[in-house]
Amino acid sequence: MAEVSNKQITLKHYVSGFPKESDLEVKTTTTCLKVPEGTPNAILVKNLYLSCDPYMRHRMSNHKGSYIIDAFIPGSPITGYGVCKVIDSTHPDFKNDDLVWGLAVGWEEYSLITDTQWIIKIQNTEVPLSYYTGILGMAGLTAYVGFYEICSPKKGEKVFISTASGAVGQLVGQFAKLFGCYVVGSAGTKEKVDLLKNKFGFDEAFNYKEEEEDLNSALKRYFPDGIDIYFENVGGKMLEAVLLNMRLHGRIAACGMISQYNLVKPEGVKNLFSLILKRIRMEGFLVLDYLHLYPKFLEMILPHIKEGKINYVEDIAQGLENGPAALIGLYSGHNVGKKLVVVAHE
Amino acid sequence: MAEVSNKQITLKHYVSGFPKESDLEVKTTTTCLKVPEGTPNAILVKNLYLSCDPYMRHRMSNHKGSYIIDAFIPGSPITGYGVCKVIDSTHPDFKNDDLVWGLAVGWEEYSLITDTQWIIKIQNTEVPLSYYTGILGMAGLTAYVGFYEICSPKKGEKVFISTASGAVGQLVGQFAKLFGCYVVGSAGTKEKVDLLKNKFGFDEAFNYKEEEEDLNSALKRYFPDGIDIYFENVGGKMLEAVLLNMRLHGRIAACGMISQYNLVKPEGVKNLFSLILKRIRMEGFLVLDYLHLYPKFLEMILPHIKEGKINYVEDIAQGLENGPAALIGLYSGHNVGKKLVVVAHE
Repeated sequence: MAEVSNKQITLKHYVSGFPKESDLEVKTTTTCLKVPEGTPNAILVKNLYLSCDPYMRHRMSNHKGSYIIDAFIPGSPITGYGVCKVIDSTHPDFKNDDLVWGLAVGWEEYSLITDTQWIIKIQNTEVPLSYYTGILGMAGLTAYVGFYEICSPKKGEKVFISTASGAVGQLVGQFAKLFGCYVVGSAGTKEKVDLLKNKFGFDEAFNYKEEEEDLNSALKRYFPDGIDIYFENVGGKMLEAVLLNMRLHGRIAACGMISQYNLVKPEGVKNLFSLILKRIRMEGFLVLDYLHLYPKFLEMILPHIKEGKINYVEDIAQGLENGPAALIGLYSGHNVGKKLVVVAHE
Repeated sequence: MAEVSNKQITLKHYVSGFPKESDLEVKTTTTCLKVPEGTPNAILVKNLYLSCDPYMRHRMSNHKGSYIIDAFIPGSPITGYGVCKVIDSTHPDFKNDDLVWGLAVGWEEYSLITDTQWIIKIQNTEVPLSYYTGILGMAGLTAYVGFYEICSPKKGEKVFISTASGAVGQLVGQFAKLFGCYVVGSAGTKEKVDLLKNKFGFDEAFNYKEEEEDLNSALKRYFPDGIDIYFENVGGKMLEAVLLNMRLHGRIAACGMISQYNLVKPEGVKNLFSLILKRIRMEGFLVLDYLHLYPKFLEMILPHIKEGKINYVEDIAQGLENGPAALIGLYSGHNVGKKLVVVAHE
């Protein structure tokens, strides 16, 4: 059978410190559009949308003993969450033209997926397909699990979200508003702060990077009575300031700590004694532990999307060759909303 | 009515940094042994045993907005947990000769207690009365709540306890052993390490101060497969090392952070990203939120004490005049076991 050209994004070498676009490489190989003979339970997919996620930074380092997922293999295409179309299958659950989303999708035009445990068939196509990289994918389920399961919210509580306009934060804020909470978010540009207030309906938002010298004072201004729930995406100095402003019996859902990912030596966080003084629960979580809640999540979110009660902002890079810039830009906050790469529209 | 002499320990002035014995003062005033006329719901008590507790350090600083308890008032007797005998009462629940324990007991020979909300009548006197400053008081209930309620233990889990020979740690270790866990403790002298292994039945114990240069390596040696439960009493560098050695879905009960109490600038704690990688729950708690469990706790602990299944080591200072040394010594680890001061035996 004829081979076709297959563009790929590979990691050149393991990275220490801040990653650069040049740590990734665009190259072109060829591939056959069939599952190789004698390979059962596999699918050959055409990749449509690829998700850019902060956690991918960890996979660029040669870490050992990770509890999440292995490091990328230099020279091979990087992988992540994505949306694909099945073009050949030896798996009984998938047939040609099925649309799927999931983890372990290669940053390339076509991928052979032999481990389909993280691949989910898309049932609902009334929404943009790209949503399965974000609001209907890992980011959406993360926001859902983090807010409803980890934060144990109560109506009227005060919620603070860092990197609030990102793939997860924008949803946590909207879930919290729908739930009847007071919601404040922080972001790093005026444009993002405007989005938070005008598009996502946050009660307040502030620009931690350009306008607030003193995070502690900023939080005191927005939360004179303290924070009940903190949805933690950044770590470091922000966490330090939040700890001083938490209320009694507050909860911190630790979803990410993006401020620390590119530091060779992570910062120490002060004020942890607040956890005791204020009897705070701080809990780290990973969406992969909660995949069983995905159907329940879809049931909740789909009507909200259709009725326009929840907005989702995507920041879309066109073409695989723009993938490196899209991914690396995450760590400087270049993205406005959920960052993804379009490989092909169908 | 005649007045009697009343020796007291007072705080001279608010303290910054490491407290010294000379920050406290022994002085003698006089008092009348009756509840003043027209004062309802009050008791006049003779103080027998006073509890020395690490948290008292916070009350020596002029903190504001504390969520626990007010700062001490310079010039007035310091207060804390203690065991007393009622010698006069206008309170319907207390009569002369009743033995009581509780919070807000003055460091003096006789105290007038007008706010009795934290005063509990002692029903069982078959055990040493001093136990109500420790194993049958705040320390015991703290260990019980911290281990059973906050740590959500499972049989066979690996438990690590810092300041393990202290008032609370020695009990947490014994509860965990009775529950079927593997238990390791750290302490700061050879004598304490011996106690942990020989008196309290810990599986292992190590001397973090004199024998282990590298806490991370020490923990790796004692927990090659990681720690499920960490009972946190110290904070700082120990917490940093523990975070690297926690297992998936581990739990950290944050009871105290004594390493930080005397620092003018608290240390930053690194490795918090482990909370996410390993989906760890870290929770601060205070025993005052769990006083309703005291009867259930007594029901569990009293038979264990009587049957000799639980040991409790007390480190007893004789006489109120030795109170300052007893209390300040806590912060250098001078105490071996539960530190208390005998004011009078009955």
